[in-house]
Amino acid sequence: MRCLPAPGLAEPQPVGRWALRLEYDGGPFVGWQRQASGVSVQAVLEEAATRLAGGVPLAVLAAGRTDAGVHAAAQVAQLDLPEALAARLSADHLRDALNFHLKPHPVVVTAAAPAPAGWHARFSAIGRAYAYRILNRPSRAALAAGRVWHVKRPLDASAMAEAAGLLLGRHDFTSFRAAACQARSPVRTLDALVVRRSDDVIEIEAHARSFLHHQVRNMVGTLKLVGDGHWPASRVTEALAARDRASAGPTAPAAGLCLVAVTYPQDPFAA
Amino acid sequence: MRCLPAPGLAEPQPVGRWALRLEYDGGPFVGWQRQASGVSVQAVLEEAATRLAGGVPLAVLAAGRTDAGVHAAAQVAQLDLPEALAARLSADHLRDALNFHLKPHPVVVTAAAPAPAGWHARFSAIGRAYAYRILNRPSRAALAAGRVWHVKRPLDASAMAEAAGLLLGRHDFTSFRAAACQARSPVRTLDALVVRRSDDVIEIEAHARSFLHHQVRNMVGTLKLVGDGHWPASRVTEALAARDRASAGPTAPAAGLCLVAVTYPQDPFAA
Repeated sequence: MRCLPAPGLAEPQPVGRWALRLEYDGGPFVGWQRQASGVSVQAVLEEAATRLAGGVPLAVLAAGRTDAGVHAAAQVAQLDLPEALAARLSADHLRDALNFHLKPHPVVVTAAAPAPAGWHARFSAIGRAYAYRILNRPSRAALAAGRVWHVKRPLDASAMAEAAGLLLGRHDFTSFRAAACQARSPVRTLDALVVRRSDDVIEIEAHARSFLHHQVRNMVGTLKLVGDGHWPASRVTEALAARDRASAGPTAPAAGLCLVAVTYPQDPFAA
Repeated sequence: MRCLPAPGLAEPQPVGRWALRLEYDGGPFVGWQRQASGVSVQAVLEEAATRLAGGVPLAVLAAGRTDAGVHAAAQVAQLDLPEALAARLSADHLRDALNFHLKPHPVVVTAAAPAPAGWHARFSAIGRAYAYRILNRPSRAALAAGRVWHVKRPLDASAMAEAAGLLLGRHDFTSFRAAACQARSPVRTLDALVVRRSDDVIEIEAHARSFLHHQVRNMVGTLKLVGDGHWPASRVTEALAARDRASAGPTAPAAGLCLVAVTYPQDPFAA
């Protein structure tokens, strides 16, 4: 994901704004954001919306701009439809029509709803949750290929959980921030960082209002150093205090990351 | 899966027999069994073993011959190695070497162990467990594509669970048996058929000593008729009693099925 700049002035709310919940396999994409270098989730969705609108160019904007290879189980985006079109579409109709035009890409709209007054997919969001999965066994993934980080060396999930606890709360996360991060402030509040092992899979779930660019993957890459015994858990506190990217661990691969929830003061999809 | 003929006379036990636990994505394969029509999991594994043995042709045999498109999280197979090779391989070495030669196919050996005396991957097995996943929502799968049966119409998982209970126990399962099934007897004992819903996913887990060809998929196809209201749960009892394939529901798609466990009186992989 990328950093979130502070909200600007509220835009005027178009009449035909819809909230969309999206699931996608990030594998074949250059990320959420349109780029000259390849196909993005945004481009695929905008193309589907434009086809639905009979050729009128339409733009979508997401709660979190996931990076290349990062998946989403519940991304949220906004789509402003021309008023005449918005008026004659039901939520189910819009969802099904977009899904029709999204084929054969691994992107689907799982829910659509008229946006509440004043709602903005990105600036109204008050929480993001990401899940990161490590396949921790000698053999590479067959069934979960492209959805996990394969780490052969046995990881101590308890030590990782202890280290994760040291990152909770409000901190300057400069040590875990990508060089390219555009956020004005490196201060974020990490509400949860849960490490769970289930057989061969270690899942790390991270909750915050927003994250810095690469923050989750940099935290996971650091926890892995604790898990495999390279670092004592306490070194995570030193890395955080250093406010220096070089003091923390490497960036974990994109394939293991999935955006699993975006929360709003009022759930736009609550029926 | 295919039917299991009754065990024949015990074969003499080769010295170099190994037990392998396998995970595979069934999507790109014609099934477990070698076939002229395409690439099978068996062929890919035998080729890897043969390369490991420096060109000596080697054969593998599995506990359950999964059909085209059916996945496995824990298939079990046996591999008889030339004695000299078997003597100088550790279990980890064999696993890693096979995995090296299995690349880039979505098939991995997750465990290898010297087989206990008299052990046979198929005839020694006393239980098989399959999991079937239905994605029950309007939108097709993006993240679980190729791993689920997508059913748009809402299914009543409680009604399906009630119907599943009627299939438990020892019965003549002719109504749920593929025409091509080669088993001598259509009688099987279904030990468990659990239906669970978690959000949009309905998982059906089936346990038995062995299953008839297509039995799990035919049971799932029938439970789906109950779930979508076409059938009352009680009609499953009638379908079973009819001993006629035409009286039960259609065969559910292969993609939703996964072999999740094979059990033996003594677990060959218990360290």
